Amino acid sequence: MTPDAAQPTRPQPLTMQDVLLTLQRFWTERGAMVVQPFNTEVGAGTANPATMLRVLGPEPWTVGYVEPSVRPDDARYGENPNRLQTHTQFQVILKPDPGNPQEVYLQSLEALGVDVHAHDIRFVEDNWASPALGAWGLGWEVWLDGLEITQFTYFQQAGGLVLDPVSVEITYGIERIVMALQGVDHFKKIIYAPGISYDEAFGQAEYEMSRYYLDDADIPTNQQLFGAYADEADRLLDLRLPVPAYGYILKSSHTFNVLDARGAISTTERASSFARMRNLTRRAAQLWTERRDELGHPLGVVTPPPAAAAPSGFPQIDGTNTLLFEIGLEELPAGEVVRSAEAVRTAVTDKLAQTRLPHGKVSALSTPRRIVVTVAGVQAREPDAERTVRGPRTSAAFGPDGAPTKAAAGFARGQQIAVSDLQVIEIDGVQHVGITRIDPGRGAAEVLSGLLAEVVAELRAEKNMRWRDAGLSYARPVRWLLALLGNTPVPVAVSSLASGVTTRVLRTAERPVVTVERADGYREFLSDHGIVADSADRRAQIVAAAEELAAGVGGVVDLDGEAALVDQIAALVEAPNAVLGSFDPRYLELPTAVLTTVMRKHQRYLPVVSPTDGSLLPHFVAVANGPCDRVLVAAGFSDVLRNRYEDAAFFWRADLKVPPADFQAGLAKLTFAEGLGSMADRAARIADTASTLATFVAISDTDAATLARAGELAKFDLASQMVVELSSLAGTMAGVYARAAGESDAVATALVEMEQPRSAGAPVPQSVPGTLLSLADRFDLLAGLFATGARATGSSDPFGLRRAALGVISILRAWPALADITIPGGLEAAAGRLRQAGVVVTQDALDEAGEFIARRYEQAVLDGGAEHRLVQAVLPLAVTPAVADLALADLETLVDDEGFVALTTALQRARRLVPAGTSTTYDPAALTDPAELALGAAVDAAGPAVRSARTLAEFAAAASPLAAPINEFFDNVLVMADDPAVRAARLGLLATINELAEGRLDWVALG
Amino acid sequence: MTPDAAQPTRPQPLTMQDVLLTLQRFWTERGAMVVQPFNTEVGAGTANPATMLRVLGPEPWTVGYVEPSVRPDDARYGENPNRLQTHTQFQVILKPDPGNPQEVYLQSLEALGVDVHAHDIRFVEDNWASPALGAWGLGWEVWLDGLEITQFTYFQQAGGLVLDPVSVEITYGIERIVMALQGVDHFKKIIYAPGISYDEAFGQAEYEMSRYYLDDADIPTNQQLFGAYADEADRLLDLRLPVPAYGYILKSSHTFNVLDARGAISTTERASSFARMRNLTRRAAQLWTERRDELGHPLGVVTPPPAAAAPSGFPQIDGTNTLLFEIGLEELPAGEVVRSAEAVRTAVTDKLAQTRLPHGKVSALSTPRRIVVTVAGVQAREPDAERTVRGPRTSAAFGPDGAPTKAAAGFARGQQIAVSDLQVIEIDGVQHVGITRIDPGRGAAEVLSGLLAEVVAELRAEKNMRWRDAGLSYARPVRWLLALLGNTPVPVAVSSLASGVTTRVLRTAERPVVTVERADGYREFLSDHGIVADSADRRAQIVAAAEELAAGVGGVVDLDGEAALVDQIAALVEAPNAVLGSFDPRYLELPTAVLTTVMRKHQRYLPVVSPTDGSLLPHFVAVANGPCDRVLVAAGFSDVLRNRYEDAAFFWRADLKVPPADFQAGLAKLTFAEGLGSMADRAARIADTASTLATFVAISDTDAATLARAGELAKFDLASQMVVELSSLAGTMAGVYARAAGESDAVATALVEMEQPRSAGAPVPQSVPGTLLSLADRFDLLAGLFATGARATGSSDPFGLRRAALGVISILRAWPALADITIPGGLEAAAGRLRQAGVVVTQDALDEAGEFIARRYEQAVLDGGAEHRLVQAVLPLAVTPAVADLALADLETLVDDEGFVALTTALQRARRLVPAGTSTTYDPAALTDPAELALGAAVDAAGPAVRSARTLAEFAAAASPLAAPINEFFDNVLVMADDPAVRAARLGLLATINELAEGRLDWVALG
Repeated sequence: MTPDAAQPTRPQPLTMQDVLLTLQRFWTERGAMVVQPFNTEVGAGTANPATMLRVLGPEPWTVGYVEPSVRPDDARYGENPNRLQTHTQFQVILKPDPGNPQEVYLQSLEALGVDVHAHDIRFVEDNWASPALGAWGLGWEVWLDGLEITQFTYFQQAGGLVLDPVSVEITYGIERIVMALQGVDHFKKIIYAPGISYDEAFGQAEYEMSRYYLDDADIPTNQQLFGAYADEADRLLDLRLPVPAYGYILKSSHTFNVLDARGAISTTERASSFARMRNLTRRAAQLWTERRDELGHPLGVVTPPPAAAAPSGFPQIDGTNTLLFEIGLEELPAGEVVRSAEAVRTAVTDKLAQTRLPHGKVSALSTPRRIVVTVAGVQAREPDAERTVRGPRTSAAFGPDGAPTKAAAGFARGQQIAVSDLQVIEIDGVQHVGITRIDPGRGAAEVLSGLLAEVVAELRAEKNMRWRDAGLSYARPVRWLLALLGNTPVPVAVSSLASGVTTRVLRTAERPVVTVERADGYREFLSDHGIVADSADRRAQIVAAAEELAAGVGGVVDLDGEAALVDQIAALVEAPNAVLGSFDPRYLELPTAVLTTVMRKHQRYLPVVSPTDGSLLPHFVAVANGPCDRVLVAAGFSDVLRNRYEDAAFFWRADLKVPPADFQAGLAKLTFAEGLGSMADRAARIADTASTLATFVAISDTDAATLARAGELAKFDLASQMVVELSSLAGTMAGVYARAAGESDAVATALVEMEQPRSAGAPVPQSVPGTLLSLADRFDLLAGLFATGARATGSSDPFGLRRAALGVISILRAWPALADITIPGGLEAAAGRLRQAGVVVTQDALDEAGEFIARRYEQAVLDGGAEHRLVQAVLPLAVTPAVADLALADLETLVDDEGFVALTTALQRARRLVPAGTSTTYDPAALTDPAELALGAAVDAAGPAVRSARTLAEFAAAASPLAAPINEFFDNVLVMADDPAVRAARLGLLATINELAEGRLDWVALG
Repeated sequence: MTPDAAQPTRPQPLTMQDVLLTLQRFWTERGAMVVQPFNTEVGAGTANPATMLRVLGPEPWTVGYVEPSVRPDDARYGENPNRLQTHTQFQVILKPDPGNPQEVYLQSLEALGVDVHAHDIRFVEDNWASPALGAWGLGWEVWLDGLEITQFTYFQQAGGLVLDPVSVEITYGIERIVMALQGVDHFKKIIYAPGISYDEAFGQAEYEMSRYYLDDADIPTNQQLFGAYADEADRLLDLRLPVPAYGYILKSSHTFNVLDARGAISTTERASSFARMRNLTRRAAQLWTERRDELGHPLGVVTPPPAAAAPSGFPQIDGTNTLLFEIGLEELPAGEVVRSAEAVRTAVTDKLAQTRLPHGKVSALSTPRRIVVTVAGVQAREPDAERTVRGPRTSAAFGPDGAPTKAAAGFARGQQIAVSDLQVIEIDGVQHVGITRIDPGRGAAEVLSGLLAEVVAELRAEKNMRWRDAGLSYARPVRWLLALLGNTPVPVAVSSLASGVTTRVLRTAERPVVTVERADGYREFLSDHGIVADSADRRAQIVAAAEELAAGVGGVVDLDGEAALVDQIAALVEAPNAVLGSFDPRYLELPTAVLTTVMRKHQRYLPVVSPTDGSLLPHFVAVANGPCDRVLVAAGFSDVLRNRYEDAAFFWRADLKVPPADFQAGLAKLTFAEGLGSMADRAARIADTASTLATFVAISDTDAATLARAGELAKFDLASQMVVELSSLAGTMAGVYARAAGESDAVATALVEMEQPRSAGAPVPQSVPGTLLSLADRFDLLAGLFATGARATGSSDPFGLRRAALGVISILRAWPALADITIPGGLEAAAGRLRQAGVVVTQDALDEAGEFIARRYEQAVLDGGAEHRLVQAVLPLAVTPAVADLALADLETLVDDEGFVALTTALQRARRLVPAGTSTTYDPAALTDPAELALGAAVDAAGPAVRSARTLAEFAAAASPLAAPINEFFDNVLVMADDPAVRAARLGLLATINELAEGRLDWVALG
């Protein structure tokens, strides 16, 4: 075999075995142990006890090892270019975090022959969690020209235990790295050893093990094995033997994976099996930790890094200077970059406000690797301040003889002054003895030193992590601090970090660490090193470059449509370097949604489209970080895309062979949520609930037929390989595959529409069947999850309850014709179907769900710019959002109408007076006052028209004649008459008025 | 940790992980692939499919890999210095054999930092077979200063399939190598990685997995797993998926080992489980081979090395020269060294005899690495020879006219001569036409070239193997040929080998390959290179050196007692270099038999004993091969012994904690032989059979009590760790442990004696209980195995039937007092007990066993120098060997006695005449002839004394008066008289005489 002819200039790449040997050698030279792969099938290097158990407890553990990772579900008979039932990981654990793991990692890539100066290597946020292992961590995917080659994680928790110290986990994806190094497009073409391809050596095993996992594993046998393994693990934990117990946990886990790949895990089994494995793992972790304690920690105990020395003095500052403070970081998550600058700016501003240090404007900029705050015009010192210390009242301070009392003497002694130095000061009109002291202003360096240390110590992000520096916690590790006031270093010490006068520029720079001489002009200083510190500048550069590159191939980038992606890209680089990439036009036969989803979601590439019809062109713009070999990197970006498209094409072709009904049957394998069955159960409920909703409204026979068929196929594409891989294409692919399978356009459309709206403001279904299915989907989700106790709290909304509720609102607002479907009605329809399936759904849960949806309506109209008071007023109507919308629109006109205002005021008077529950029946004969008689007559007259008013406008028109009589009544009549009969009649009359207005608005809110 | 202080001068040794990395690097640099350990527990690297499957079929496969090898039975909680439940192998497979695997292997040791010039590195015969894998191979243990560090095997068969090409398997024992390199005496002290000991890193796992394997594995669960795995393997083989099937075979095998370590394998399970695994493995191997064929051999097909070119011409030789022919070998088994020289000498002699080449004496010498044959006085050519070709008879060759017939013409034409050239030659008195041709003699080089090639091609040993040279087969590979006639090279081509003029001297020599100029003086030439070519010389050197070294510490070596060991040592080296080693005297507290057994059997060390009382001194003499650092090597030899003694001491201490009865119970775990139950079953049978034998003879109450107790404990030590490790100590340890447990001396002695005699000529039991147990043991073995179909054939006698039979003979000959125990009686006693246990024992089988034992008697007395004819004569008495001995002794005297000779002759006359089955009752009245009357009277007179004679001598004395009357009778009486009554009486008289002589001897044999 020869390397890919397209890459003839690359030097002779390493064989796969040399890559493995090189990594072992590299890491041992950096103090790691090398151990062997575990002698039981594991799904990942993480599962090997050399990671899972060793990250626990206080002992150091720095290790590297190869791990053939077995994933039965990834078996493809060797046919898929990138997917193997056994792929090879090289796993590194650094415990403790050495402080520079990214840098060491990059050296390892160089050792493999990767020219880090030519390639685009980036750390892209990727957080990892394994509920089954009770483990999570924060970190990155490492991208090599867009290809994910490594998972890099700061392990925070494992086996349910908080890790202290934190371990750094580096997991190299060996086949991917080798394919990239060797420039081959199928794992089978990898040169494993000189003259021997992966296929030649291992092709048969790949095929046969795929056969086993996908087709031939005996299900009862594996079920039996699963139980036997788990029981044995359980028993061994009771015997306090975590090592063999953990081995059996791994065996049970693998067997579970085999059963899963064979499609043999029922919903109940999945839930109970996971719970069992999780519980066993937690126990094993706990027991391991105990046993290591008992053994006295044979490998010793990690010593945390020493705290940085507190500043022993502060430099003298003269004049007015600019403060530069840089917090150096490992790559922040894209979502944190802009936020971080703002948070630090606010913190500095607030903290400065608590000092007396005069200063000018506080600004902050950020990139993935730094938060730079500057404060203009910082004066040299705080001014001195007077402070009054109050002593005893004068009357108590001096005796009748004018001599100081003991109290005065004591106070003076406490203040270390002579009694004769006591002054008389007046506080709140009372004279006290006391003393006025001068608090001398601190020097700027001293002020800033403490303040900036606090800023760092108090840094917090949405998700925070720990690293070796046990005193800090943030989105990613803080690795350096730079503080200059003018050209004077300001000493800042926080935890183990001490500020200096250096910054780190691009890692690939000739000198990656540079000294900064002065605070002024730092933005330009960074710019000279290729770094664009301002997110807005980066964004603008990216936009300009994308436009230019797209134009070069006769295309455009939809910069409005891609605005969020551009924001994200701007937060992924500090030195944007956009390149144009291309892909083989034959991939354009794949659905556009597939192509663009892959580009955006997986690769953060900007699609290039035709300026005339917006159709996709076979090009994209991708943004590298910093200088690189643009031809090489563009080729790499394109290679990755080709590989992903090849994957997608594989799924596409494979999926097209499967009838939708077969996929539908496959949904039984997919769990929905605990207590709510499988996705097949859910799809069936949605179909039935949609049918029920259809009975609330009149739909055509054609629509009914479409609804029935689409209901049968609801969500079938969730079982397709494409959607398993690209979940955001759910629905989209249903439409495509349904059409390909000969379903009608209407059915295909309904299947697409049932997933709409996909987000706030996104399109809602346009067809009745699609609408009904979409509503049923969301009512089922909300009713089901509220019934089983799930709630959206804070930032946590794993099931997307908010989005579902907003979807209901969006659809019902868009479809006044379906106003007979109310929110409570829809929830109740879903609840009925859920109850059929044995789910307990209480009225309280439904009420709570209804309330939750109503709040989304409130939020939606407020976000739409409506006045808060008016929104509150129409909220009672939100059970039918289209009606509420109409009322709100009417109200927005009426609030400026004098008659309506008068009516409102009058109605509020009535409403305030009448107790709740007052009967509307009364004895008209008891009314005698002319005002009350007039009111009675007016009510009788207006009543029919008021009652039949369909809109708020009609109501206002019909009811406005009541305003004057009501006011007359209140002005002249004492409602609470002594005579009970009179009082009852008067209340009854007012209650009737209230009843006429009831439900039209929240009149009180309007007040 | 610091290296052992005793070895301060060694350079910084590699850590264990560096050893593993270095080996990977070393072998990849020599073209090997590196693969990963298998992800299922395996007992050895051999089991990994990268060996077991890949050695099958014609594809090349050169691979190296680490294999953590799990052996539940070796679990010791981490307490034993050398034994781990998981030890680490580095496994190399070279397919095809590269032709120089030993040399490459030695380079790998150098890469690990082993100074091969300083150390003694040897290849010591070790043949490997795994019935469970249907696999075997021949090769060596590699010894580093006496420490086995590697198994080196030429794989001949696997999965029941003959391997073509043969694979070289090199299995490094990593912990041993590392312990030696690092100079540590416990695996826990190994420096695994810088600053981390094996114990610190893996001690807990070692302990916990030991707990699991020895104490805590759930037996029913593992039984269930075993069945599930085997069933799954079976099913996958039916589905033609050898890869997953083989994985499950390995899982079943490991589970079996777990059950075995837990003592949970019953005899029947063991047999059936082994059969099942063997069968599955064979099917997997067969299927793998078929599948690779179907896949078209993805890795290609090994090409055999080309045949050496046949000589294109032969050199002209002048005068008379010495032939030197050397066959260069990889280390022969010790047992083959002397034999090989003799075999080659004979072959050359015989083949020369079939030529006309005049030559002198043929001699041969040998070392482990060479067979050197020299032929003195080889003349330059064969003389010419005349050869007569016979044509038609003269009568048919010429017509009546004297003209040649067509027959004559045809013959002449066929001979390409003129008819006129026909000669007349006489053959067997008939005249033919014909022709005398001269066969010209061939030159010596031509003669020898073909002859020597045949010698090499026809080399055969007791066990033969194949290597890369498919045309050859021998005990070990032939790697070079050297042939010189005088100083002229003789071209010899056989298979891929062509002779040259170089030889290989010691591998550690500065120039290991040297040119040989002339045939004469080759012995001295080798001697100059340190090689002692003559086995006898080597032996003499070893003896002399051993005496001198032993004397240096005031001791001696028992050179007579150790003669066989000295022979063996002389066959293990080509350059004997004896050194004196020592061990810590505290080990002398161990039983001497243990100490000397370890020395002799495992290490081939000569024990040094006190010249006064023969007691063991703490010294030994060991013999290295070639120059080395004698201090270093002596220390190494001593280290190995210390380690082994430490092991033995561990067993000793552990065994002493176990009461004999507990060991006895453990025998149920040990299989005896198929169909004959466990060792516990056998021990019980032996005890019962011994009791039965005791009833045949009169024994004292004391002996009876001793017998009963010893019977209860029979063979208990087979379950002790010491005997499991050192099986030749069976019986010896029983005595030691029994005494230690408070058993009586008599019982202990009986337990020792029941294993006696250990070999031909070795001591037999001296006590009655010991004797009875020993006999019962052997009768049980013979009766049982003959009953179940086992036989000793050729060199195959796996159950030691011959030795058992010889034991019976030796004991019964030594114990005339027990003559009431006959061979058939003993066998029948054993058979009775076997039948009780459900074994079918036919009379035919017992007869065959009896006959087998009798042949041993015959052999024994012949070996003792008795005359064949006399031995044959006493054979009928061999059912009671002591009686036969007595008769033989008498006979040896009597054969020179005239009277006895006359008696014999007379008795033979009678015997020849009387048909078998003739009645001895007759009517005396029918006898009338004086001679027959005289004979009748003589018979009547001698009868009582004859019948009561206890010995042959007494019989001869009593019967001799019959000789004369018998002869008279035959001279005068016609036995076959016409009168039937007379004839019957005469025959009856003679039959009576025969009956008197019957059973005394085989009279016919004596004729």
